Amino acid sequence: MRGVIMYAPGDVRVEERERPGIVEPTDAVIRVAAACVCGSDLWPYRGLQPVDGPSPMGHEYVGVVEEIGPEVRNIKVGDFVVGSFLASDNTCEICQAGYQTHCINRQPGAATGAQSEYARIPLADGTLVATGTQPTPEQIPSLLAASDVLGTGWFAAVAAEAGPGKTVAVVGDGAVGLLGILAASRLGAERIIAMSRHADRQALATKFGATDIVEERGAEGVAKIKELTNGLGAHSVIEAVGTQESMMQAIHATRPGGHVGFVGVSHGVSLDGAKLFFSGVHLHGGPAPVRRFLPELIELIMNGEINPGEVFDLTLPLEQAAEAYRAMDERRAIKVLLTP
Amino acid sequence: MRGVIMYAPGDVRVEERERPGIVEPTDAVIRVAAACVCGSDLWPYRGLQPVDGPSPMGHEYVGVVEEIGPEVRNIKVGDFVVGSFLASDNTCEICQAGYQTHCINRQPGAATGAQSEYARIPLADGTLVATGTQPTPEQIPSLLAASDVLGTGWFAAVAAEAGPGKTVAVVGDGAVGLLGILAASRLGAERIIAMSRHADRQALATKFGATDIVEERGAEGVAKIKELTNGLGAHSVIEAVGTQESMMQAIHATRPGGHVGFVGVSHGVSLDGAKLFFSGVHLHGGPAPVRRFLPELIELIMNGEINPGEVFDLTLPLEQAAEAYRAMDERRAIKVLLTP
Repeated sequence: MRGVIMYAPGDVRVEERERPGIVEPTDAVIRVAAACVCGSDLWPYRGLQPVDGPSPMGHEYVGVVEEIGPEVRNIKVGDFVVGSFLASDNTCEICQAGYQTHCINRQPGAATGAQSEYARIPLADGTLVATGTQPTPEQIPSLLAASDVLGTGWFAAVAAEAGPGKTVAVVGDGAVGLLGILAASRLGAERIIAMSRHADRQALATKFGATDIVEERGAEGVAKIKELTNGLGAHSVIEAVGTQESMMQAIHATRPGGHVGFVGVSHGVSLDGAKLFFSGVHLHGGPAPVRRFLPELIELIMNGEINPGEVFDLTLPLEQAAEAYRAMDERRAIKVLLTP
Repeated sequence: MRGVIMYAPGDVRVEERERPGIVEPTDAVIRVAAACVCGSDLWPYRGLQPVDGPSPMGHEYVGVVEEIGPEVRNIKVGDFVVGSFLASDNTCEICQAGYQTHCINRQPGAATGAQSEYARIPLADGTLVATGTQPTPEQIPSLLAASDVLGTGWFAAVAAEAGPGKTVAVVGDGAVGLLGILAASRLGAERIIAMSRHADRQALATKFGATDIVEERGAEGVAKIKELTNGLGAHSVIEAVGTQESMMQAIHATRPGGHVGFVGVSHGVSLDGAKLFFSGVHLHGGPAPVRRFLPELIELIMNGEINPGEVFDLTLPLEQAAEAYRAMDERRAIKVLLTP
């Protein structure tokens, strides 16, 4: 089968690889219907995170179950399924509390790489959710979004306690930030302020439910949020970048007693304890337990109530994965869908 | 009148000072019935925080209203009242959300110092809560505890989401930590693990509701908490110290998805963003909005349901304030009550 391998920063190749099979009795093997490039794939691509030798890439996927291990009960061959970037048993105490990304038995969701024709998914019963009926081609990008960026944006909005009567500010206009806007809107937020300086992303932000756009960043961005909120700051702030500047922008844009949901993977961030103490905000985030939200998100997508697949503004065949990485790295695309 | 002044680290004196009067129409002047030395007073006393010239000390107080400004409506002369360390209007949007320590009009709760015979309390209507009837002498220490250490421990327990079915760990065995235990117990926590290596504090912890004692600290303390919680960590952790070690101990002792309530005033703390991200905990804390809890706490005390005044293990006349500071600094006393 064909699959994507990253050899070094900037060096992504599509190669012939061995088709994965069942290893553990709880595994499933899926034929990937669509995969994509994640913002987090850009960290090693840009050399900001080490590449440990040639690495199979991709952790967002939807597809059709080809094969199941003898202990798999909930998933059948032929099911169209959505998974996420970490495999979980969905039965341990941590999973049951809704934190499947911290499952006591967690492992990579697609260790063999999802940017490929086939992928082996461990703990299939706990990890995969079947769509019930087969999706239309139009629904596939949205289901793919659910497997990471939508689930992550949704978690961020929930962690930030977005809801009726709340003003929500969103730091970061990548796919996760944009889908955080969609989530906040669905959760009933009264006002949603997108922080973005790119016209195409602003347009999508507005389509997803943003009521205001702030182009300023850092201290100026914070001042603008305060100006829009009677000097108090937003009730809820979604942080979807992961840098020192974006974290501090998020914390300072939040009113005392408000909530920051941070899902940008932290890179080089250091929080001053005293500043955090005197800010009075709630802070919650981390790797999003996408699995918690999948059943609800799949239902919303299959019913046509949300269309998160709009974040994919470029679709390429798997063979052109290198161009997909380049397009995202150069910000020519918000998010690239790959079709095997 | 007589009042406490800190001149420099280790240099605390009781001096003749001018009796405060009404300055703003929203002020009240109280005759202090009891005051005390706070753990946070020890930071400048120990030279770990600068002393800006001679400073009137004390921000925990109960007393009888002597005089009110012309705009004070809710508090009458003769009322026995409890206040806290920050004055708040209790009407702004932040106060109404329960974050009176971040009131848009906040100011020091007793700028003239509460370790004295009289104190001027700004924003009296928003800051002071009357006990209704006059308390008995036995109730006064408990009401005094409500004005800071109980209110702070209570906030920490609420921030850590202590409640039925939860295992709560408490880092710090000072008055705030001990009263965090009492709060967690009243909030219905199933199991409360006190982290303490002092027999007298362990005894009080147990009296307040601790079910387990852990003497280990740092990584060993965390390992012990994990051992007591099936390897998962506590659901809720109260941090009541404010150092780097105690914060990391609290975060690492919390299970993913659990809650850390941190109320120890942060000194030199720096949190690694990636560690916090991957911990998956909720973090909330800061200067406790004691005012939010005062009506409920006063009722519990006046009804004899709780006796937080037991944290005072030494009572001295105001004139011996210097000895009070020494006793706390040398950990000969958990908390010292001063009677003017």
